[in-house]
Amino acid sequence: MKALYFDGKLSLRDLPILKPRTGEALIRMICAGICNTDLEIIQGYMSFRGVLGHEFVGRVEECEDRSWIGKRVVGEINLPCGQCDFCRSGMGNHCPARTVLGISGKDGAFAEYLTLPVKNLHAVPNNVSDLDAVFTEPLAAALEILEQVPIQNFHRCIVLGDGKLGQLIARVLKPHCPDLNVIGKHEHKLDLLRQVGIKTQMMEKVIDWVEDLEKLPDLVVEATGSALGLGMALELVRPRGTLVLKSTFHGRTSLDLSPLVVNEITVVGSRCGPFAKALDLLASGQLDLSRLIIGVLPLDQGLEAVEMAQAKGTLKVILKG
Amino acid sequence: MKALYFDGKLSLRDLPILKPRTGEALIRMICAGICNTDLEIIQGYMSFRGVLGHEFVGRVEECEDRSWIGKRVVGEINLPCGQCDFCRSGMGNHCPARTVLGISGKDGAFAEYLTLPVKNLHAVPNNVSDLDAVFTEPLAAALEILEQVPIQNFHRCIVLGDGKLGQLIARVLKPHCPDLNVIGKHEHKLDLLRQVGIKTQMMEKVIDWVEDLEKLPDLVVEATGSALGLGMALELVRPRGTLVLKSTFHGRTSLDLSPLVVNEITVVGSRCGPFAKALDLLASGQLDLSRLIIGVLPLDQGLEAVEMAQAKGTLKVILKG
Repeated sequence: MKALYFDGKLSLRDLPILKPRTGEALIRMICAGICNTDLEIIQGYMSFRGVLGHEFVGRVEECEDRSWIGKRVVGEINLPCGQCDFCRSGMGNHCPARTVLGISGKDGAFAEYLTLPVKNLHAVPNNVSDLDAVFTEPLAAALEILEQVPIQNFHRCIVLGDGKLGQLIARVLKPHCPDLNVIGKHEHKLDLLRQVGIKTQMMEKVIDWVEDLEKLPDLVVEATGSALGLGMALELVRPRGTLVLKSTFHGRTSLDLSPLVVNEITVVGSRCGPFAKALDLLASGQLDLSRLIIGVLPLDQGLEAVEMAQAKGTLKVILKG
Repeated sequence: MKALYFDGKLSLRDLPILKPRTGEALIRMICAGICNTDLEIIQGYMSFRGVLGHEFVGRVEECEDRSWIGKRVVGEINLPCGQCDFCRSGMGNHCPARTVLGISGKDGAFAEYLTLPVKNLHAVPNNVSDLDAVFTEPLAAALEILEQVPIQNFHRCIVLGDGKLGQLIARVLKPHCPDLNVIGKHEHKLDLLRQVGIKTQMMEKVIDWVEDLEKLPDLVVEATGSALGLGMALELVRPRGTLVLKSTFHGRTSLDLSPLVVNEITVVGSRCGPFAKALDLLASGQLDLSRLIIGVLPLDQGLEAVEMAQAKGTLKVILKG
């Protein structure tokens, strides 16, 4: 099978089709999305070696439980051990022995086929298109914020970052945050947000916010994908405010931590989220995500697709199986 | 009056006695404690210029409200503007226009006299000695943790740091955390904790904890006073755990933030706390803090006292007025 493989260098390879293990399904990839995490892995994040990709929609071709065969599915990306204290207490996503699809110890979705445990799978409702379903994983990650913070308690909310994840987070928060602003660097990305009724600010004008201390947001969601994000968010957030940190990246960050202590900020790290809720939201038809996709390329052109995803100011690039 | 003054260099000066402003009391310093924050200011933290010192007990000598005259008092260190949105919503400690005793824009307590607004003062109960009362401010800072996190929800707690603040935090948390450990670098400081029934671990043995992932603490209080503290705490805390950050220091920290996101850690910055509760706790006689004091020096010997407080492995040094 064709696969986009990373071993310090990214290449398109011809690999043997995977054999599903006990409890796993063999899934033919329909679409897969390129995420910032993939680009960070290429920079060295997680020291991963293998087939990249963790955002996908596919069709089950082989499975012990034959009721899954032929079904269109998305899949949760964490493969917990099932035995440890974390797994037994419902925290399998944090199992220390877990592998993670296309991120850690498990070949991913940028290939004609992938395998996942059946218990990771969610059937995609018929009214959700392939190009919407491929957003399930990052949309779930955006929804995780609502699982972690009491969103109704906040008065002013800022999403920092107008990229792929920032776009989804803003759409997810909008119904819950009457006073929501997205701060970004790209006029054309902010425009997409304004088209769905979300207020925006160009990054360079942020200084005006910082000067009007009484208007500072009490919730800042950091989704810049950049090492500078946390420092910027710490400058923006109101004392005693909450800062949700979404960006993962390779390498170290240098920052002055004293505002975190002096202003008694709460920082909440936030990662994977609820797939079922993401699928419900997609099925509701409330989100139009089509304009977030800037290219759909066949797997054959995987290297070009990754280059397109790495370009400055880009949005979502999709691979087609 | 004699005062320990910092203007880039610390010196003992003879300054005019302060004139209390409207609403302020003139207080004769009885004792003042040297805090890590004072030592950080000497390193450049807060760019403060003036009389150092914010932990004190004193006696009111002048005051419009004559009922205060002669009273032994401690005082809250933040002087909010009283007008802004923060002040009006009960968050005066976070007023952006505030000055802070001996830390920002307000001469401090390492002097024969200091001034503070009457509303900042708390009368010290008769059964609390001067050398206990001088711990009110840092003890309140330790108690702030109980105001910020639902302490009963945590199963295993670690205090990182066996210094002045770590010692107080451990004593404050002990009744609430059946499984509490303090990790430190100094056998003689850990010994003080063991004498009051608190379990301890030497820092170099921490690796054993990190290897036994199921025993990781779900609450870590970082009180190392060091730029390395947060990174260490992030390695120690259990996924989805909470990390209370207490250290403020001059300069920037370099750290890998991805564990914060991947492990969905909550980091809570924590600063000043409730004085009334600290005085209640001191009056209850439950805490024996005398062994935390390694030296009581007259203000005249302020420079020597600061040197003593700067020494490695030291604990609390007190200035006497």
